[in-house]
Amino acid sequence: MKEIVFNPIGIVHSPHKVNTETPVQPVFCGEIEGTVEIQPEYADGLKSLDGFSHIFLFYEFDQSGKTELLVKPYLQDVEHGIFATRKPHRPNKLGMSLVELIRVDGCTLHVKGVDILDGTPLIDIKPYVTRFDVRENARSGWQDNVTDDDAAKRGLRSYKQD
Amino acid sequence: MKEIVFNPIGIVHSPHKVNTETPVQPVFCGEIEGTVEIQPEYADGLKSLDGFSHIFLFYEFDQSGKTELLVKPYLQDVEHGIFATRKPHRPNKLGMSLVELIRVDGCTLHVKGVDILDGTPLIDIKPYVTRFDVRENARSGWQDNVTDDDAAKRGLRSYKQD
Repeated sequence: MKEIVFNPIGIVHSPHKVNTETPVQPVFCGEIEGTVEIQPEYADGLKSLDGFSHIFLFYEFDQSGKTELLVKPYLQDVEHGIFATRKPHRPNKLGMSLVELIRVDGCTLHVKGVDILDGTPLIDIKPYVTRFDVRENARSGWQDNVTDDDAAKRGLRSYKQD
Repeated sequence: MKEIVFNPIGIVHSPHKVNTETPVQPVFCGEIEGTVEIQPEYADGLKSLDGFSHIFLFYEFDQSGKTELLVKPYLQDVEHGIFATRKPHRPNKLGMSLVELIRVDGCTLHVKGVDILDGTPLIDIKPYVTRFDVRENARSGWQDNVTDDDAAKRGLRSYKQD
Protein backbone atom coordinates (compact mmCIF):
# COMPACT_ATOMS: atom_id res chain seq x y z
CA MET A 1 0.00 0.00 0.00
CA LYS A 2 1.09 3.51 -0.86
CA GLU A 3 2.52 5.75 1.83
CA ILE A 4 0.50 8.77 2.95
CA VAL A 5 2.18 12.15 3.04
CA PHE A 6 0.82 15.02 5.11
CA ASN A 7 2.19 18.54 5.38
CA PRO A 8 1.76 20.37 8.70
CA ILE A 9 -0.86 23.12 8.59
CA GLY A 10 0.42 24.78 11.75
CA ILE A 11 2.07 24.31 15.11
CA VAL A 12 0.91 23.90 18.71
CA HIS A 13 2.30 26.10 21.47
CA SER A 14 1.87 24.93 25.05
CA PRO A 15 3.49 25.16 28.46
CA HIS A 16 4.53 21.48 28.15
CA LYS A 17 8.23 21.22 27.35
CA VAL A 18 8.96 17.74 28.68
CA ASN A 19 7.25 14.48 27.70
CA THR A 20 7.06 12.98 31.17
CA GLU A 21 5.57 16.14 32.67
CA THR A 22 2.77 16.35 30.09
CA PRO A 23 -0.71 15.20 31.14
CA VAL A 24 -2.05 12.34 29.06
CA GLN A 25 -5.45 13.73 28.08
CA PRO A 26 -7.22 17.11 27.92
CA VAL A 27 -9.69 16.04 30.63
CA PHE A 28 -6.80 15.90 33.08
CA CYS A 29 -5.60 19.42 32.35
CA GLY A 30 -8.80 21.38 31.77
CA GLU A 31 -7.34 24.72 32.78
CA ILE A 32 -4.07 24.58 30.88
CA GLU A 33 -4.10 27.00 27.96
CA GLY A 34 -2.19 26.95 24.73
CA THR A 35 -2.35 28.34 21.23
CA VAL A 36 -2.42 26.85 17.79
CA GLU A 37 -0.78 28.86 15.00
CA ILE A 38 -2.26 28.07 11.61
CA GLN A 39 -0.20 28.90 8.54
CA PRO A 40 -1.65 32.02 6.88
CA GLU A 41 -2.38 30.20 3.61
CA TYR A 42 -5.07 28.16 5.46
CA ALA A 43 -6.78 31.14 7.13
CA ASP A 44 -9.98 30.80 5.06
CA GLY A 45 -10.43 27.27 6.39
CA LEU A 46 -11.12 28.64 9.87
CA LYS A 47 -14.35 30.41 8.90
CA SER A 48 -17.22 29.49 11.30
CA LEU A 49 -14.93 27.51 13.59
CA ASP A 50 -15.54 30.01 16.40
CA GLY A 51 -19.14 28.74 16.74
CA PHE A 52 -17.87 25.47 18.21
CA SER A 53 -17.02 25.22 21.90
CA HIS A 54 -14.76 22.19 21.37
CA ILE A 55 -12.52 21.05 18.54
CA PHE A 56 -10.39 18.01 17.77
CA LEU A 57 -6.74 18.72 17.10
CA PHE A 58 -4.81 16.12 15.10
CA TYR A 59 -1.05 16.21 15.21
CA GLU A 60 2.13 14.22 14.91
CA PHE A 61 3.69 12.70 18.02
CA ASP A 62 6.99 13.89 16.62
CA GLN A 63 8.93 13.25 19.85
CA SER A 64 7.83 9.61 19.97
CA GLY A 65 10.52 7.70 18.18
CA LYS A 66 9.73 4.12 19.02
CA THR A 67 6.80 1.90 18.09
CA GLU A 68 5.50 -0.67 20.55
CA LEU A 69 2.56 -2.94 19.83
CA LEU A 70 2.11 -4.03 23.45
CA VAL A 71 2.19 -1.27 26.05
CA LYS A 72 1.28 -0.51 29.63
CA PRO A 73 -0.92 2.56 29.40
CA TYR A 74 -0.36 5.57 31.66
CA LEU A 75 -3.49 4.79 33.65
CA GLN A 76 -3.01 1.07 34.35
CA ASP A 77 -0.13 -1.39 34.95
CA VAL A 78 -1.52 -4.02 32.61
CA GLU A 79 -0.31 -4.68 29.09
CA HIS A 80 -2.69 -3.87 26.24
CA GLY A 81 -2.43 -3.58 22.47
CA ILE A 82 -1.35 -0.12 21.33
CA PHE A 83 -4.65 0.32 19.43
CA ALA A 84 -6.58 -0.23 22.68
CA THR A 85 -4.72 2.73 24.20
CA ARG A 86 -4.04 6.36 23.34
CA LYS A 87 -0.26 6.15 23.89
CA PRO A 88 2.03 7.79 21.32
CA HIS A 89 4.07 4.67 20.49
CA ARG A 90 1.81 3.69 17.58
CA PRO A 91 2.91 2.59 14.10
CA ASN A 92 1.69 5.93 12.72
CA LYS A 93 2.34 8.74 15.21
CA LEU A 94 -1.10 10.34 14.97
CA GLY A 95 -2.26 12.21 18.06
CA MET A 96 -5.76 13.50 18.79
CA SER A 97 -6.83 15.92 21.50
CA LEU A 98 -10.32 17.21 22.15
CA VAL A 99 -9.79 20.74 23.45
CA GLU A 100 -11.95 23.70 24.36
CA LEU A 101 -11.85 26.55 21.86
CA ILE A 102 -11.67 29.86 23.73
CA ARG A 103 -11.36 32.20 20.77
CA VAL A 104 -10.05 32.56 17.25
CA ASP A 105 -7.78 35.53 16.65
CA GLY A 106 -6.76 35.64 12.97
CA CYS A 107 -4.66 32.53 12.45
CA THR A 108 -4.27 31.89 16.18
CA LEU A 109 -6.59 29.57 18.07
CA HIS A 110 -6.66 30.00 21.83
CA VAL A 111 -7.48 26.65 23.39
CA LYS A 112 -7.88 25.15 26.85
CA GLY A 113 -7.18 21.63 28.08
CA VAL A 114 -3.89 21.24 26.27
CA ASP A 115 -2.06 17.92 26.69
CA ILE A 116 0.24 18.49 23.71
CA LEU A 117 3.98 19.14 23.74
CA ASP A 118 5.12 22.61 22.73
CA GLY A 119 6.21 22.77 19.09
CA THR A 120 4.06 19.86 17.88
CA PRO A 121 3.19 19.87 14.14
CA LEU A 122 -0.55 20.14 13.45
CA ILE A 123 -2.17 17.94 10.79
CA ASP A 124 -5.86 18.80 10.92
CA ILE A 125 -8.69 20.38 12.90
CA LYS A 126 -12.25 19.03 13.04
CA PRO A 127 -15.19 20.48 14.94
CA TYR A 128 -16.63 18.47 17.84
CA VAL A 129 -20.25 17.86 16.87
CA THR A 130 -22.48 16.43 19.57
CA ARG A 131 -24.73 14.62 17.07
CA PHE A 132 -21.73 12.88 15.47
CA ASP A 133 -19.39 12.32 18.39
CA VAL A 134 -21.35 11.21 21.44
CA ARG A 135 -22.27 7.59 22.06
CA GLU A 136 -24.47 6.76 25.02
CA ASN A 137 -23.73 3.70 27.13
CA ALA A 138 -20.41 2.95 25.48
CA ARG A 139 -18.23 0.24 27.04
CA SER A 140 -14.70 1.52 27.52
CA GLY A 141 -12.92 -1.83 27.98
CA TRP A 142 -10.02 -1.84 30.48
CA GLN A 143 -10.63 1.86 31.12
CA ASP A 144 -13.87 0.93 32.91
CA ASN A 145 -11.73 -0.80 35.56
CA VAL A 146 -9.80 2.38 36.34
CA THR A 147 -11.50 4.60 38.94
CA ASP A 148 -11.95 8.29 38.16
CA ASP A 149 -9.75 9.20 41.13
CA ASP A 150 -6.96 6.96 39.97
CA ALA A 151 -7.27 8.23 36.39
CA ALA A 152 -7.13 11.87 37.53
CA LYS A 153 -3.99 11.20 39.57
CA ARG A 154 -2.11 9.09 37.03
CA GLY A 155 -3.35 11.15 34.08
CA LEU A 156 -1.29 14.14 35.21
CA ARG A 157 1.97 12.12 35.15
CA SER A 158 4.60 14.37 36.75
CA TYR A 159 2.96 17.59 35.65
CA LYS A 160 4.13 20.33 38.03
CA GLN A 161 1.19 22.26 39.38
CA ASP A 162 1.70 25.62 41.10
CA MET B 1 8.05 22.24 8.51
CA LYS B 2 8.89 18.65 7.75
CA GLU B 3 6.40 16.47 5.92
CA ILE B 4 4.78 13.62 7.83
CA VAL B 5 4.81 10.15 6.32
CA PHE B 6 2.38 7.45 7.40
CA ASN B 7 2.17 3.88 6.16
CA PRO B 8 -1.26 2.24 6.04
CA ILE B 9 -1.78 -0.38 8.77
CA GLY B 10 -4.73 -1.98 7.00
CA ILE B 11 -7.70 -1.44 4.73
CA VAL B 12 -11.42 -0.82 5.16
CA HIS B 13 -14.00 -2.97 3.37
CA SER B 14 -17.51 -1.61 3.07
CA PRO B 15 -20.58 -1.77 0.84
CA HIS B 16 -19.90 1.82 -0.28
CA LYS B 17 -18.40 1.84 -3.76
CA VAL B 18 -19.39 5.34 -4.89
CA ASN B 19 -18.58 8.64 -3.17
CA THR B 20 -21.93 10.28 -3.70
CA GLU B 21 -23.85 7.27 -2.38
CA THR B 22 -21.85 7.11 0.85
CA PRO B 23 -23.48 8.49 4.02
CA VAL B 24 -21.53 11.34 5.60
CA GLN B 25 -21.26 10.09 9.18
CA PRO B 26 -21.61 6.79 11.10
CA VAL B 27 -24.67 8.11 12.97
CA PHE B 28 -26.54 8.20 9.66
CA CYS B 29 -25.79 4.60 8.79
CA GLY B 30 -25.91 2.79 12.12
CA GLU B 31 -26.81 -0.59 10.63
CA ILE B 32 -24.32 -0.69 7.77
CA GLU B 33 -21.60 -3.23 8.48
CA GLY B 34 -18.08 -3.46 7.20
CA THR B 35 -14.74 -4.96 8.08
CA VAL B 36 -11.30 -3.62 8.74
CA GLU B 37 -8.36 -5.83 7.74
CA ILE B 38 -5.27 -5.12 9.78
CA GLN B 39 -1.91 -6.18 8.37
CA PRO B 40 -0.73 -9.29 10.24
CA GLU B 41 2.44 -7.57 11.50
CA TYR B 42 0.25 -5.33 13.69
CA ALA B 43 -1.87 -8.14 15.20
CA ASP B 44 -0.43 -7.72 18.72
CA GLY B 45 -1.60 -4.12 18.74
CA LEU B 46 -5.23 -5.30 18.82
CA LYS B 47 -4.99 -6.93 22.25
CA SER B 48 -7.82 -5.76 24.59
CA LEU B 49 -9.53 -3.80 21.81
CA ASP B 50 -12.54 -6.12 22.00
CA GLY B 51 -13.47 -4.67 25.40
CA PHE B 52 -14.49 -1.41 23.74
CA SER B 53 -17.93 -1.03 22.20
CA HIS B 54 -16.85 1.84 19.95
CA ILE B 55 -13.59 2.75 18.23
CA PHE B 56 -12.28 5.62 16.16
CA LEU B 57 -10.98 4.70 12.74
CA PHE B 58 -8.52 7.10 11.10
CA TYR B 59 -7.94 6.82 7.41
CA GLU B 60 -6.95 8.62 4.25
CA PHE B 61 -9.64 10.19 2.07
CA ASP B 62 -7.71 8.77 -0.86
CA GLN B 63 -10.48 9.44 -3.39
CA SER B 64 -10.64 13.13 -2.50
CA GLY B 65 -8.26 14.82 -4.90
CA LYS B 66 -9.06 18.45 -4.42
CA THR B 67 -8.54 20.78 -1.48
CA GLU B 68 -11.07 23.53 -0.77
CA LEU B 69 -10.78 25.94 2.14
CA LEU B 70 -14.35 27.20 1.85
CA VAL B 71 -17.04 24.55 1.41
CA LYS B 72 -20.75 24.00 1.65
CA PRO B 73 -21.11 21.04 4.01
CA TYR B 74 -23.39 18.12 3.15
CA LEU B 75 -25.89 19.16 5.83
CA GLN B 76 -26.28 22.87 5.04
CA ASP B 77 -26.21 25.19 2.01
CA VAL B 78 -24.02 27.78 3.68
CA GLU B 79 -20.30 28.21 3.13
CA HIS B 80 -17.99 27.41 6.04
CA GLY B 81 -14.27 26.93 6.50
CA ILE B 82 -13.13 23.38 5.83
CA PHE B 83 -11.89 23.05 9.44
CA ALA B 84 -15.42 23.84 10.70
CA THR B 85 -16.72 20.85 8.71
CA ARG B 86 -15.95 17.16 8.37
CA LYS B 87 -15.77 17.19 4.56
CA PRO B 88 -12.92 15.32 2.86
CA HIS B 89 -11.56 18.28 0.87
CA ARG B 90 -9.07 19.25 3.60
CA PRO B 91 -5.39 20.14 3.12
CA ASN B 92 -4.44 16.81 4.74
CA LYS B 93 -6.91 14.08 3.74
CA LEU B 94 -7.41 12.66 7.24
CA GLY B 95 -10.75 10.99 7.86
CA MET B 96 -12.18 9.93 11.22
CA SER B 97 -15.17 7.68 11.87
CA LEU B 98 -16.53 6.61 15.23
CA VAL B 99 -17.90 3.12 14.62
CA GLU B 100 -19.36 0.32 16.71
CA LEU B 101 -17.02 -2.64 17.21
CA ILE B 102 -18.99 -5.87 16.82
CA ARG B 103 -16.16 -8.35 17.19
CA VAL B 104 -12.48 -8.94 16.57
CA ASP B 105 -11.62 -12.05 14.59
CA GLY B 106 -7.84 -12.38 14.29
CA CYS B 107 -6.77 -9.39 12.19
CA THR B 108 -10.32 -8.62 11.07
CA LEU B 109 -12.48 -6.10 12.89
CA HIS B 110 -16.22 -6.35 12.27
CA VAL B 111 -17.72 -2.90 12.61
CA LYS B 112 -21.09 -1.24 12.30
CA GLY B 113 -21.98 2.29 11.24
CA VAL B 114 -19.59 2.43 8.33
CA ASP B 115 -19.48 5.66 6.30
CA ILE B 116 -16.17 4.84 4.65
CA LEU B 117 -15.54 4.01 0.99
CA ASP B 118 -14.53 0.43 0.21
CA GLY B 119 -10.76 0.05 -0.15
CA THR B 120 -9.82 3.01 2.04
CA PRO B 121 -6.30 2.89 3.59
CA LEU B 122 -6.34 2.78 7.40
CA ILE B 123 -3.90 4.96 9.38
CA ASP B 124 -4.77 4.31 13.04
CA ILE B 125 -7.31 2.96 15.51
CA LYS B 126 -8.03 4.49 18.91
CA PRO B 127 -10.53 3.29 21.50
CA TYR B 128 -13.54 5.49 22.30
CA VAL B 129 -13.22 6.25 26.00
CA THR B 130 -16.20 7.91 27.62
CA ARG B 131 -14.10 9.75 30.21
CA PHE B 132 -11.86 11.24 27.49
CA ASP B 133 -14.26 11.81 24.63
CA VAL B 134 -17.56 13.15 25.92
CA ARG B 135 -18.15 16.84 26.55
CA GLU B 136 -21.42 17.91 28.11
CA ASN B 137 -23.19 21.03 26.85
CA ALA B 138 -20.90 21.52 23.88
CA ARG B 139 -21.89 24.16 21.35
CA SER B 140 -21.78 22.72 17.83
CA GLY B 141 -21.70 25.99 15.85
CA TRP B 142 -23.62 25.96 12.54
CA GLN B 143 -24.57 22.32 13.17
CA ASP B 144 -26.87 23.50 15.97
CA ASN B 145 -28.98 25.22 13.30
CA VAL B 146 -29.57 21.99 11.38
CA THR B 147 -32.56 20.00 12.64
CA ASP B 148 -32.08 16.30 13.42
CA ASP B 149 -34.63 15.40 10.73
CA ASP B 150 -32.84 17.43 8.11
CA ALA B 151 -29.47 16.03 9.14
CA ALA B 152 -30.74 12.44 8.96
CA LYS B 153 -32.13 13.02 5.47
CA ARG B 154 -29.18 14.92 4.01
CA GLY B 155 -26.63 12.80 5.87
CA LEU B 156 -27.50 9.76 3.78
CA ARG B 157 -26.74 11.59 0.51
CA SER B 158 -27.95 9.27 -2.27
CA TYR B 159 -27.35 6.10 -0.31
CA LYS B 160 -29.59 3.41 -1.81
CA GLN B 161 -31.57 1.64 0.88
CA ASP B 162 -33.34 -1.63 0.19
